[in-house]
Amino acid sequence: MRHLPGTPHQLPGNSLSLAGYQASHFKFEVQAGVATLTLNRPERKNPLTFESYAELRDLFRALAYAEDVKAVVITGAGENFCSGGDVHDIIGPLTKLDMPGLLAFTRMTGDLVKAVRVCPQPVIAAIDGVCAGAGAILAMASDMRLGTERSKTAFLFTRVGLAGCDMGACALLPRLIGQGRAAELLFTGRSMAGPEGERWGFFNSLHEPAALLQAAQALAQGLASGPTFAHGMTKKMLQQEWNMGVDEAIEAEAQAQAICMATNDFHRAYHAFVAKQKPEFEGN
Amino acid sequence: MRHLPGTPHQLPGNSLSLAGYQASHFKFEVQAGVATLTLNRPERKNPLTFESYAELRDLFRALAYAEDVKAVVITGAGENFCSGGDVHDIIGPLTKLDMPGLLAFTRMTGDLVKAVRVCPQPVIAAIDGVCAGAGAILAMASDMRLGTERSKTAFLFTRVGLAGCDMGACALLPRLIGQGRAAELLFTGRSMAGPEGERWGFFNSLHEPAALLQAAQALAQGLASGPTFAHGMTKKMLQQEWNMGVDEAIEAEAQAQAICMATNDFHRAYHAFVAKQKPEFEGN
Amino acid sequence: MRHLPGTPHQLPGNSLSLAGYQASHFKFEVQAGVATLTLNRPERKNPLTFESYAELRDLFRALAYAEDVKAVVITGAGENFCSGGDVHDIIGPLTKLDMPGLLAFTRMTGDLVKAVRVCPQPVIAAIDGVCAGAGAILAMASDMRLGTERSKTAFLFTRVGLAGCDMGACALLPRLIGQGRAAELLFTGRSMAGPEGERWGFFNSLHEPAALLQAAQALAQGLASGPTFAHGMTKKMLQQEWNMGVDEAIEAEAQAQAICMATNDFHRAYHAFVAKQKPEFEGN
Repeated sequence: MRHLPGTPHQLPGNSLSLAGYQASHFKFEVQAGVATLTLNRPERKNPLTFESYAELRDLFRALAYAEDVKAVVITGAGENFCSGGDVHDIIGPLTKLDMPGLLAFTRMTGDLVKAVRVCPQPVIAAIDGVCAGAGAILAMASDMRLGTERSKTAFLFTRVGLAGCDMGACALLPRLIGQGRAAELLFTGRSMAGPEGERWGFFNSLHEPAALLQAAQALAQGLASGPTFAHGMTKKMLQQEWNMGVDEAIEAEAQAQAICMATNDFHRAYHAFVAKQKPEFEGN
Repeated sequence: MRHLPGTPHQLPGNSLSLAGYQASHFKFEVQAGVATLTLNRPERKNPLTFESYAELRDLFRALAYAEDVKAVVITGAGENFCSGGDVHDIIGPLTKLDMPGLLAFTRMTGDLVKAVRVCPQPVIAAIDGVCAGAGAILAMASDMRLGTERSKTAFLFTRVGLAGCDMGACALLPRLIGQGRAAELLFTGRSMAGPEGERWGFFNSLHEPAALLQAAQALAQGLASGPTFAHGMTKKMLQQEWNMGVDEAIEAEAQAQAICMATNDFHRAYHAFVAKQKPEFEGN
Repeated sequence: MRHLPGTPHQLPGNSLSLAGYQASHFKFEVQAGVATLTLNRPERKNPLTFESYAELRDLFRALAYAEDVKAVVITGAGENFCSGGDVHDIIGPLTKLDMPGLLAFTRMTGDLVKAVRVCPQPVIAAIDGVCAGAGAILAMASDMRLGTERSKTAFLFTRVGLAGCDMGACALLPRLIGQGRAAELLFTGRSMAGPEGERWGFFNSLHEPAALLQAAQALAQGLASGPTFAHGMTKKMLQQEWNMGVDEAIEAEAQAQAICMATNDFHRAYHAFVAKQKPEFEGN
């Protein structure tokens, strides 16, 4: 076994609470069930490093067991989302690794995407300014994306001699914006402007920069006060059915929805409806 | 074996004719090969019940063998398409079922979608007003969707404490409008407006409410007068290739199209072309 | 073994150079690593014949081994892209073939699409005027498509009594423009106008007819001067991950990108960045 780039972080693997988690390489705050994760090296446009990759991966893995986080917002400090892997901190060292070391790195970054897709909380990316390279992948790993007109999303891998197939990009991007548009962005590395991204389905909506984070948190808050067990199932099945046949997907949903029909939230909703009240969901 | 919710209906399983079928829980009329199926409880915005689910399922299964129906239009009476599963008739009783009963229900509703996807006739949904819950799924199970500006499509499951994964929604919706937009609609349950739906590819086109049904029937009539055996193959292959690799899909189409090249309709078209005439297709 | 329609062409199967290739059934020119392939029977709107199908298939197969072609542009002479399979040269003879002969033909046309998808060079279609039938499939087999406002793309198969499932259309078109819009075009055979195609993601961009070819060649030239080994990997993975699950795609990309990180182009890019220079890629 070779040593993984990036130190594993001490996260409680089966903890029920992440509200008090003190992050080392980014900001992490939880308020009323909504975690806000802020990439926070604004002077460098919030690049990723070996250490921040690893801590992000471990945090999202821990979120699968966290009971006090119901939705997650990812954003960046200082009017940019994320500039991707740092050239000095990451690309330089990578040029010195042997093949097992390279694969350990690409698997670690891929594990971050897997962890974001696996945690049951809906993840909303709030994207202003630069959203590049691995930053653009982190945006795609999220369930929804809110942007600004001035945001610039670019899959820059080709600019550093690499392929567009990074951390799942060739699977994720075509399903968001279509195969032809994805091919162009991945081959050329050109920036997708905010309005273009909204028109193509990359962004769910565009917002004024000053109102962006609030909009993402409001969306997250709405979901956090909903039937969160069911939301986790929605997220799971969007992932599970990615490459099922239609009939297999229908059977998978028959099972998944039957499970949700056995929850108290479903009963609560029915009784609230009959009583002409708004249901109070508890996520069970 | 547990008892399925919804009484099986007496449909002739291998009948060659459905033109005279008298539907119990909706309107069903056949004219010149085009069946128009109208959900018909306008005072409740055309909800579905155990009985109408089951009759719809059985009808679409029977359509696989019907020789006098070449295309199907689904619509709703009274300026709404369908409000989905009725709260009193369906949701109430569901809260009293045990797990096998719940699964029997979710499988029955899934079987309706499977039956719509399997019948060889192109199915066109004509959607005005409310298109909600299972009604929105029925719209997605159709091959094409015509809408109106004022139509409101909503995947309301989350509002009653359930997940967005209902009757295949997490498989179908992302392929219609993209993964990111689908996630938002399924997580939030918010309404998609008509123009939004057209822009995103949910609707093929929007029409004036008064002209909607006629437009859907005209589209259906055009298909019914075309090479209907080949249309059935187009529908079958859109389903078959849902999760094939590209090369496997190409081989599957080589076989499917070779079958179509052995039909008389192909020969008719060639001879009509040579004679500078319009071909008359017969579906064989 | 039956005899394939279309004579196999004498292409050097493991050649390192295609720059001097003299095509028999279309124009083929290579300039600075960019091949421009021009369908060239403008008086008939550039139809395909058994012979041109076979030569196209063999040329794209040979491109997998060509070292002096880094990107490909496909276009048509005389303000049209391609009118598809010629009615007299192809459809007439097909009506006289038995089933093995039909399958041999549909497999040969499918093999052209497979060959375009397999060659490592990005393929850009420059589409003006008529883009119909097999011509529309050839456009879809390409990685990117540039069009004009007046271009008309139509999947005409239904007009000659055939199904929309031709050469992979039912797999390719839904991933470009969405399942609902694809269904309409494949069932009805109606023309998609240029602006519609751009709005839906079929076209990457629209251009003035007089500037179209130049725009496609400039895009190709930009890619040809980039990290071409990595571009080949991007193309390969877009194909490979077509129907993988998300997690499998992420692992596949971890391997593919690790390979690219072992290339000199990656090192060149890093050293150029550090030296504040523009990298010179060499495709290795």
